[in-house]
Amino acid sequence: MRTEAATFFQELQREICAALEHVDGRGRFMSHTWIRPGEGGAPGGGGTSNVLHQGSLFEQAGVNFSEVQGMLAEEMSQVLVGSTRKEPFFACGVSLVLHPGSPFIPTTHANYRYLEVGEKSWFGGGGDLTPYYLFEADAQHFHRTLKLVCDRHDSRYYPQFKRDCDEYFFLPHRKEARGVGGIFFDYLGRDTAVDMRKIFALVRELGKNFLECYVPIVDRRRHLTWTEDEKNFQLIRRGRYVEFNLLYDRGTLFGLKTGGRTESILMSLPPLVRWEYDDQITPSSREAKLLEVLRHPRDWV
Amino acid sequence: MRTEAATFFQELQREICAALEHVDGRGRFMSHTWIRPGEGGAPGGGGTSNVLHQGSLFEQAGVNFSEVQGMLAEEMSQVLVGSTRKEPFFACGVSLVLHPGSPFIPTTHANYRYLEVGEKSWFGGGGDLTPYYLFEADAQHFHRTLKLVCDRHDSRYYPQFKRDCDEYFFLPHRKEARGVGGIFFDYLGRDTAVDMRKIFALVRELGKNFLECYVPIVDRRRHLTWTEDEKNFQLIRRGRYVEFNLLYDRGTLFGLKTGGRTESILMSLPPLVRWEYDDQITPSSREAKLLEVLRHPRDWV
Repeated sequence: MRTEAATFFQELQREICAALEHVDGRGRFMSHTWIRPGEGGAPGGGGTSNVLHQGSLFEQAGVNFSEVQGMLAEEMSQVLVGSTRKEPFFACGVSLVLHPGSPFIPTTHANYRYLEVGEKSWFGGGGDLTPYYLFEADAQHFHRTLKLVCDRHDSRYYPQFKRDCDEYFFLPHRKEARGVGGIFFDYLGRDTAVDMRKIFALVRELGKNFLECYVPIVDRRRHLTWTEDEKNFQLIRRGRYVEFNLLYDRGTLFGLKTGGRTESILMSLPPLVRWEYDDQITPSSREAKLLEVLRHPRDWV
Repeated sequence: MRTEAATFFQELQREICAALEHVDGRGRFMSHTWIRPGEGGAPGGGGTSNVLHQGSLFEQAGVNFSEVQGMLAEEMSQVLVGSTRKEPFFACGVSLVLHPGSPFIPTTHANYRYLEVGEKSWFGGGGDLTPYYLFEADAQHFHRTLKLVCDRHDSRYYPQFKRDCDEYFFLPHRKEARGVGGIFFDYLGRDTAVDMRKIFALVRELGKNFLECYVPIVDRRRHLTWTEDEKNFQLIRRGRYVEFNLLYDRGTLFGLKTGGRTESILMSLPPLVRWEYDDQITPSSREAKLLEVLRHPRDWV
């Protein structure tokens, strides 16, 4: 499974990057391959980070592949499999975050991964959408497209993954969701006698489906122009994105603690961000409409 | 001690804000008073946040006073006093972060606080300097001024607090200090039979001394102009400031977890920040000189 999963994620990275270059029209991905030093001379794995800067459409787009292995600290072993000692681990996956320049095109994030820790193995992942100015049709398209794939595997998946996504991408100190959600799942196959090949099939389809979730939204909104105030609102909302990723995101904290490559992990952070003390939203404005949805997650399907 | 400490910190806030308005020349502090809802109807305290925006010199300056009380969650009680149950707590203090517009004027942070948890009480605090372009004379002035005060109380304080500061304001994932340090101490008086009034005298003098540490640096550098590249370097370095505060800073995490006012806690974040993937520093440049010092903390006195 290790080899198959890693091969699939690496191909997915290539396919997505090629498509995003086409969507952007001008930007090109720069590729960095990095090696993770293993413990005591053992191989630690590594990865390839593809980053596109200042394209015509993407202010920054990062698509990472990594495949790492080694021994996990007691603390992480405890969290992941309830073990009290260091456990051997293997993890591979693809992770992407796209930050468009336009405040009318949502930021999106997707991540699919395969993990082995000690005797256990599982898949995790998901995809979610973070609009700055909300077009309901975009949120609906994103969720419907994800649901279609999930439903082909198990009709219980989408409702569960959607709920878990709303719960996960939540900033308690703001009492806000990070965006309009999508799907999120973790530890799939870890504790149940479910066929791992079936889960892998689901993950493959979801991965392949990412472009279909996102590109139509870009195409609908790419011709809209924006004002400085609208851009400014985007920069402030990006601050919430940073807060979530550095305060709460498990992937970010796991990566930094297991000696992942800092630049590759933090490519999820937006290129330019503003914090404005006590910024106030005008009631009934489009900005207020976004906040309303972030405070009260909706069903989009 | 509660009343005396709180009264002192509140006066210190007023004194510092008045002086900083004078230094800035144009900017004025806006004041927000907030109330912290207590548990089960009990008083929870509150605070006053003073923030100055887009002055002639400070892009943002925040000086907070707070005085909060209530019951501490088991997790925090464990961390602070090794108790396994909820403990009553009281905390008051002043906390400030100044972000100048000029990349030649360092950011500074200072915080002095008094805490009671269960039967224990202590003082904590410190001040540190985060330059973007390094003037060695500035780091020396800052440290010397702090050392003078510490030495009047105990000659062991400065060396110990300086070392603790270097250790605390460190970003493991970057292998960099946040800045050139200063002093940092915590739990002073918690475990030893030291006279709390003597510690309070030290804290009072350090608090009063803040302006003397920082304002001469501002005055030396305020007339320098800067290029867009220099400003850009400042924005990227500010990203490290955000990373430290959201990933590691105990005060930030303590505040967010104990229901402090989010806007007051996060006023420490710089107003405009840039993350640039895999940004490279030219060897032997002034930027490289800063990095060298952040990677190898120096003795400045």
